[in-house]
Amino acid sequence: MTFAHRTIKITLAYDGTRFVGWQRQAGGASIQGLLEEALTRLEGAPIAVHGAGRTDAGVHAEGQVASARIGFRHECATVLRALNAMLPPDIRVGAVEDAAEGFHARFSARRKAYRYRIANVPVANPFARGYAWHIPEPLDAAAMQEAAAALIGRHDFAAFQSSGSTVATTVRTIDRSDVLRLGPELHYQVAGDGFLRHMVRAIVGTLVEVGRGARRPADVAALLDGGTRAGAGPTAPAHGLTLVAVEY
Amino acid sequence: MTFAHRTIKITLAYDGTRFVGWQRQAGGASIQGLLEEALTRLEGAPIAVHGAGRTDAGVHAEGQVASARIGFRHECATVLRALNAMLPPDIRVGAVEDAAEGFHARFSARRKAYRYRIANVPVANPFARGYAWHIPEPLDAAAMQEAAAALIGRHDFAAFQSSGSTVATTVRTIDRSDVLRLGPELHYQVAGDGFLRHMVRAIVGTLVEVGRGARRPADVAALLDGGTRAGAGPTAPAHGLTLVAVEY
Repeated sequence: MTFAHRTIKITLAYDGTRFVGWQRQAGGASIQGLLEEALTRLEGAPIAVHGAGRTDAGVHAEGQVASARIGFRHECATVLRALNAMLPPDIRVGAVEDAAEGFHARFSARRKAYRYRIANVPVANPFARGYAWHIPEPLDAAAMQEAAAALIGRHDFAAFQSSGSTVATTVRTIDRSDVLRLGPELHYQVAGDGFLRHMVRAIVGTLVEVGRGARRPADVAALLDGGTRAGAGPTAPAHGLTLVAVEY
Repeated sequence: MTFAHRTIKITLAYDGTRFVGWQRQAGGASIQGLLEEALTRLEGAPIAVHGAGRTDAGVHAEGQVASARIGFRHECATVLRALNAMLPPDIRVGAVEDAAEGFHARFSARRKAYRYRIANVPVANPFARGYAWHIPEPLDAAAMQEAAAALIGRHDFAAFQSSGSTVATTVRTIDRSDVLRLGPELHYQVAGDGFLRHMVRAIVGTLVEVGRGARRPADVAALLDGGTRAGAGPTAPAHGLTLVAVEY
């Protein structure tokens, strides 16, 4: 006897500090691996989970989204409680919903939003140490904002992609790109239809060079549509980055 | 040849998660122990440090204050940088100042302020897991506030002191005692001239019983000036508590 399968959409938050990243891999705990393990226990057979964004080791999520095809018949509220009972406290499932046939967390995503936190004070807040890049020297937030705003639009972001990546196209559309000063921190908030590997962190590394006065704001826009990875700044550390939300 | 000694005041923040508490003890890293070790290296001879509040294992501090008598002649700004270079990133020194002769972080303190965080939502925020007590059931914040406000004044707080404590007097004056709802969290904010061992956590454990409807608000005030520890609620977990500030 077989039951019809259904697709569920799982929205979850995690503190990425101790994980090897979203993606299952040998040699460490991954969010995908733990989620698949929990769903597999509920199903009694192997379940594969797809994530909207494959966050790297140390990257956090407030609103990651995952999808899975399941056969078990439990109600969504029951699945939510069961997952939180099986998952460690640094991963919390906020919502489980039935999704349309064919829904796929990555391929169906229309827009993703990320936040990058910089602790820009001489002495770091010890509570932010796993969540913000500490830069003690003063940064020019206005210059960084000027450079950040110039990234908005549809562009080839190849200069901000990790070397060695292979994707069909490096063209992406960014509709938000802002640097805000919030007390002792600078937040870079960026949203768009998709992001290349390490793209947000490479943008932040480049913006910080602008903030330090080592690069002019106009130099950043010049990296779009033809710039090389070597022309952009270094990749900012993972722990400052959070996947804030995914929209469908 | 001898130099005159001087007293310094050190203001520091720490994430208490991995420490055995403020106080030096065998079997684990303490904030006092690490601070004494760092100052001893600067002095080249043993230095003793006194803390304003002896926070327990897992309790955090945003504004702990310590005092020490030192002989070395470095300027305060140099001492601040040297301490932060020697201390681990979960302890950060925010200020080092010269203090008056006879200044003692504990005995000179006039007022201390604490905050206790309760994550009062069905699913906990994974980023708050080390900093807030997770209580999934709804709590009646208005009843808790009524009970909390009744603690303000000069009272015998013996009912809220850990059993086995020995202090000269259990009378303390509280001038702030508020329960605030802040989105998914309830914050208990309390300030006064001094606190008995586990006093804030015993108050919170009792207020939570009020919030659950297991105890009437008026029952809390009745514990003052003659109540027993057995009459009050349980001691709330350490990790929700933060020493916010010490005033002199």
